[in-house]
Amino acid sequence: MLLGSIEAGGTKFICAVGNKKYETIDCERIPTTTPDETLEKAVKYFKQFKDLESISISSFGPIELRKDAKKYGYITETPKIGWSDVNFLGTMKQHFDLPIYWTTDVNGSVYGEYINLKKQNSKINSIVYYTVGTGVGAGIIFNGKFLGDLGHPEMGHIKLKRHPDDLDFDGICPYHKDCLEGLVSGPTFEARLGKKGFEVPITNHVWDIMAYYVAQAALQATLTIRPNCIIFGGGVVNEKFLDKIRFEFTKMMNGYVNVGNVNKYIRKPSISENGSATIGNFALAKSLLS
Amino acid sequence: MLLGSIEAGGTKFICAVGNKKYETIDCERIPTTTPDETLEKAVKYFKQFKDLESISISSFGPIELRKDAKKYGYITETPKIGWSDVNFLGTMKQHFDLPIYWTTDVNGSVYGEYINLKKQNSKINSIVYYTVGTGVGAGIIFNGKFLGDLGHPEMGHIKLKRHPDDLDFDGICPYHKDCLEGLVSGPTFEARLGKKGFEVPITNHVWDIMAYYVAQAALQATLTIRPNCIIFGGGVVNEKFLDKIRFEFTKMMNGYVNVGNVNKYIRKPSISENGSATIGNFALAKSLLS
Repeated sequence: MLLGSIEAGGTKFICAVGNKKYETIDCERIPTTTPDETLEKAVKYFKQFKDLESISISSFGPIELRKDAKKYGYITETPKIGWSDVNFLGTMKQHFDLPIYWTTDVNGSVYGEYINLKKQNSKINSIVYYTVGTGVGAGIIFNGKFLGDLGHPEMGHIKLKRHPDDLDFDGICPYHKDCLEGLVSGPTFEARLGKKGFEVPITNHVWDIMAYYVAQAALQATLTIRPNCIIFGGGVVNEKFLDKIRFEFTKMMNGYVNVGNVNKYIRKPSISENGSATIGNFALAKSLLS
Repeated sequence: MLLGSIEAGGTKFICAVGNKKYETIDCERIPTTTPDETLEKAVKYFKQFKDLESISISSFGPIELRKDAKKYGYITETPKIGWSDVNFLGTMKQHFDLPIYWTTDVNGSVYGEYINLKKQNSKINSIVYYTVGTGVGAGIIFNGKFLGDLGHPEMGHIKLKRHPDDLDFDGICPYHKDCLEGLVSGPTFEARLGKKGFEVPITNHVWDIMAYYVAQAALQATLTIRPNCIIFGGGVVNEKFLDKIRFEFTKMMNGYVNVGNVNKYIRKPSISENGSATIGNFALAKSLLS
């Protein structure tokens, strides 16, 4: 029995097959070019595996995931050129007569973390996962299920209290300017400092400012969802930045709600090398078979 | 068959009994004085009804609602004098050998709205309910169940982008100063203007400022939960204020996520005369019997 995983990102598709223990047996990275070319390569990849029983796709978005919607399975209006209004799930279904799970990239990641953390602690029930990279996305597991009824969470676009030392920065979100994504996504380094993020030392005050915003996101998620933990992944996140986020979070919360050990509560992914989405997809693919 | 409801507020307890159609058969208002006196009167009230089969309590808080917690059923650390660390549920259980449901005041209200709206539209699955009064509370139904794993939502304490005309106002929350509650709860009228809210005409700019904040709460709830609708109740809310909130919400969202008709999406309770919690309690009490 083999399970298929597509982690569809804006720069690459990670296609993988795994066994029922969620161990990866084979993996291929496909650069994200045009939809036709990229999806054709993905189809060709999975055609190699005769024992494939189901597939799960976790895709960049926004995507349509309401099953009763006309465009269920589509990538909808995305800033990624050429990829708006693409029938991703439908294309895969044309080539594979298999059950196929369809969800967002961050939902794939949060599900992988849920599976892995639950192995370590069976009481884990609810997780919020933020990815802070080119954009800011979020996925939520509550009682073992994804949150989002009319669509998937879009918590990258919440409003925030502005840092007093950052009031001159307008923010870069094309829809909202100074929403979370407009203030802390990777490209904000260039917008604020004219440098790439990896060139900006952690001693630069901009990291404190960004931690102030990300901590507000953690605060809001805490006060809304009351989850077991909040995970931060994505290219912008590193351990020292997480420490700053924990510091700001603790200060803002001011003892109002007890989240236990903040080092365990606000954490990086438990699965290394960005592997959360692949594990999540294997588990979601398997869930279609039971 | 009779169902019991206690809507326990900081100024009064509304005790009621109803039938299985959730029609109120009898009702009594008990002023909230000391815990001993108030709970004794509540017990005496329900003792009159021999056919009572179950009770639901929706209480002001914060309350402990984790069933495995030592203080499950308690009002925990509340600013209401004399009411911290009160074993509300335990006291009721001493006097009634009946199943008793235990939840927050706003959860009672959101459940009543869920029951009522679902009668009108079976597709209703998820509702966010904010009460804006002496404090700001929130309750969330998702897929027919309450949200909140480590405790109930505390969305009254989220941080917000400050309105440019309100930067001199510090906010009045004893924990967070300028969280949502610290900026829009009823007592902020006196803090800002030296007048009670009912004395402040809707033409006063302070209503626009407050709408700007409440709209952010609606925005965050939308981007996090993607609910079917958001309901605002409580003493501060009126129809003209709701119009201002809708206006600010639509401007902030800027078309990013489609919520349908905003007049239906952001709305006041469907059950009149603050009756939502009583209906919710009847339904929750009944749920214990099936």
